[in-house]
Amino acid sequence: MTAPTSERIVITYHVTGEASAIDARAQGIAVEQSVEMPLEAVTDARVTRDIVGQVRGVRDLGEGLFEVKVGLAVETTGLEAGQLVNMIYGNTSINPDTVLVDAVFPQAILDAFGGPRQGIAGLRARVGVTDRPLTCSALKPQGLPIPGLADLAARFTRGGVDYIKDDHGIADQAYSPFDARVPAIAAAVRAARTETGHPTRYIPSLTGNLDELRSRIRLARDEGLDSVMIQPMIAGFPTVHTLVRENPDMAFFSHPTMTGAQRIGAPFLHGTLFRLLGADAVIYTNHGGRFPLPKDTCLDLGRRATRAWGGLKPSMPVPAGGMTPDRVPEMIDCYGNDVMLLIGGGLLLAGERLVEETRAFQDHVARLAGAVSARAVAE
Amino acid sequence: MTAPTSERIVITYHVTGEASAIDARAQGIAVEQSVEMPLEAVTDARVTRDIVGQVRGVRDLGEGLFEVKVGLAVETTGLEAGQLVNMIYGNTSINPDTVLVDAVFPQAILDAFGGPRQGIAGLRARVGVTDRPLTCSALKPQGLPIPGLADLAARFTRGGVDYIKDDHGIADQAYSPFDARVPAIAAAVRAARTETGHPTRYIPSLTGNLDELRSRIRLARDEGLDSVMIQPMIAGFPTVHTLVRENPDMAFFSHPTMTGAQRIGAPFLHGTLFRLLGADAVIYTNHGGRFPLPKDTCLDLGRRATRAWGGLKPSMPVPAGGMTPDRVPEMIDCYGNDVMLLIGGGLLLAGERLVEETRAFQDHVARLAGAVSARAVAE
Repeated sequence: MTAPTSERIVITYHVTGEASAIDARAQGIAVEQSVEMPLEAVTDARVTRDIVGQVRGVRDLGEGLFEVKVGLAVETTGLEAGQLVNMIYGNTSINPDTVLVDAVFPQAILDAFGGPRQGIAGLRARVGVTDRPLTCSALKPQGLPIPGLADLAARFTRGGVDYIKDDHGIADQAYSPFDARVPAIAAAVRAARTETGHPTRYIPSLTGNLDELRSRIRLARDEGLDSVMIQPMIAGFPTVHTLVRENPDMAFFSHPTMTGAQRIGAPFLHGTLFRLLGADAVIYTNHGGRFPLPKDTCLDLGRRATRAWGGLKPSMPVPAGGMTPDRVPEMIDCYGNDVMLLIGGGLLLAGERLVEETRAFQDHVARLAGAVSARAVAE
Repeated sequence: MTAPTSERIVITYHVTGEASAIDARAQGIAVEQSVEMPLEAVTDARVTRDIVGQVRGVRDLGEGLFEVKVGLAVETTGLEAGQLVNMIYGNTSINPDTVLVDAVFPQAILDAFGGPRQGIAGLRARVGVTDRPLTCSALKPQGLPIPGLADLAARFTRGGVDYIKDDHGIADQAYSPFDARVPAIAAAVRAARTETGHPTRYIPSLTGNLDELRSRIRLARDEGLDSVMIQPMIAGFPTVHTLVRENPDMAFFSHPTMTGAQRIGAPFLHGTLFRLLGADAVIYTNHGGRFPLPKDTCLDLGRRATRAWGGLKPSMPVPAGGMTPDRVPEMIDCYGNDVMLLIGGGLLLAGERLVEETRAFQDHVARLAGAVSARAVAE
């Protein structure tokens, strides 16, 4: 086999198996993720040279786990979001012995997809905050009539929170249709903002097919909103990337629903793939909440979302999923200032004291961030 | 809590855990998949009564595994495909202790989604075959220039196969762009059909966003094609359901790429969810091939795809993923006549003898089906 003439994505899988079988299994993955047929039946020399996947390394990680690196030709992706994920995991996802943990993408892929359009700086600029973690809360529960949701949004705004997102369960149900709900909530936030002077942002959750998503972004824009939330694993990668491309001025928050994090490493999925697609903020389930992602995994995710990467803007890490106000010091300790702290249910428990508890959350973050900065100066 | 006034989907999860903690975990799932907030903070009585998920049963399956049934209100789905999967699995997919294995959908859901438009009878009618399993092969490898793919298609057609699908890796790459490839292959199949008199169908694989998918279906239709393949886990459920609704005369094959079958039970995902969305044929990885789905799981999948279900048409089971001609007797024994036997790489190994081997495959199926029918008559 001669050297490849086309660029390769180098993908890292973790494979469970026997040492005696791992080389064959690695070769099997390389074939499955490219031509998916017996190599002896491939008659075209260019296909063999440029298209067939290549094993780039096998390393024993101990205890029956192996790291397998496979090189796949960039041209097989057609530079399209759905086909990209089809090539790097696709059929191999069906095999429980293999977890997708990482990929090194050539610059051609980064340039074609483009990553976040706003990035962390854009999210900070929207609310005029540069020197502390951002804050966020969530409108819940679904089923609450629109005036109830709008009232909650007004109270979070009066409490001075930076961002307010819809619960991801709030879609376009009869009890709060998108086209009626979003204008009402946007108006409530606008009105309450005049009391605080802080430019709190409302982030509606977008659901439906591409036509509906487009029309919902238009409606959000008409209401003066500049940030939206989408569910990449449900909307589909092609849909998300289309919306990002079409709306370069909008900030996109990715929601982790259906990410089934055990089969695709969470740091790679959120911190790399969702960022590549253009998520300005990646919401994920933090350690110690309702979901069992380990702390190291969460930190790795945060680092990937924000690391220097081929000129792409950083995505804002949004650790969530059962966070509470008492976690604030530890979360800032973990993530530093470039984080958005999302506390939903933990604030809603405040009931009648929602404005005050939101304000306390907000003040606490500002105070701790001041301490972080002072410490940084002292050091 | 009073009785619910709204209809419920009853979902079955398999949960790994301790007996002492399982009731709390079941309740946690019911909350996560509905209001996703502390119940004591839910102030609206209607939400508590009609929207909050309800545990409908917990059963010890032994060895630390539990069956948990949860009832979720139909109205939370908004009768939309993406929101449906968001509600029945969504965030809970992130938790590795829980596998989605089944759901009983009220008739309102079945009526809203509609299931396959052609079903098994429609797939049979397209090729005029009522009394034996259908046959299928696949065009591979990606990277082969268009004339090579068209030549393969012509030879499969001359061999008399019923359906010919694109490999799912063939998308819209520079080496075989969709708009040039599909007309060339369709023309090759049309020409070769005149030699056999058998109405062999070509199934192009559709990729891209909704705009591209629509334009590709139009192109397929213009070429006289009436069957297409789509990847639900990549295109996204909302996209698939939109295409099915918009093209009631088209047969849709679902491809299993990215199904990561360990976290959603394969019988439910393919035989129930993809059927609900409208897949006329469900391609899945059969036991004993390149993927490790157990035989019982595959048989269960086949039964679900074809069982009587609320007036929905049956989906044709298409067991695949490394099937070979020598598996034909056993596969017919397993699945009976209502199956489409898909052999891709196993036929491509024939090289220059592709037409003859395809013909032998075809004749073998017809002969065995005759035996099945004769046995059925004798019994």
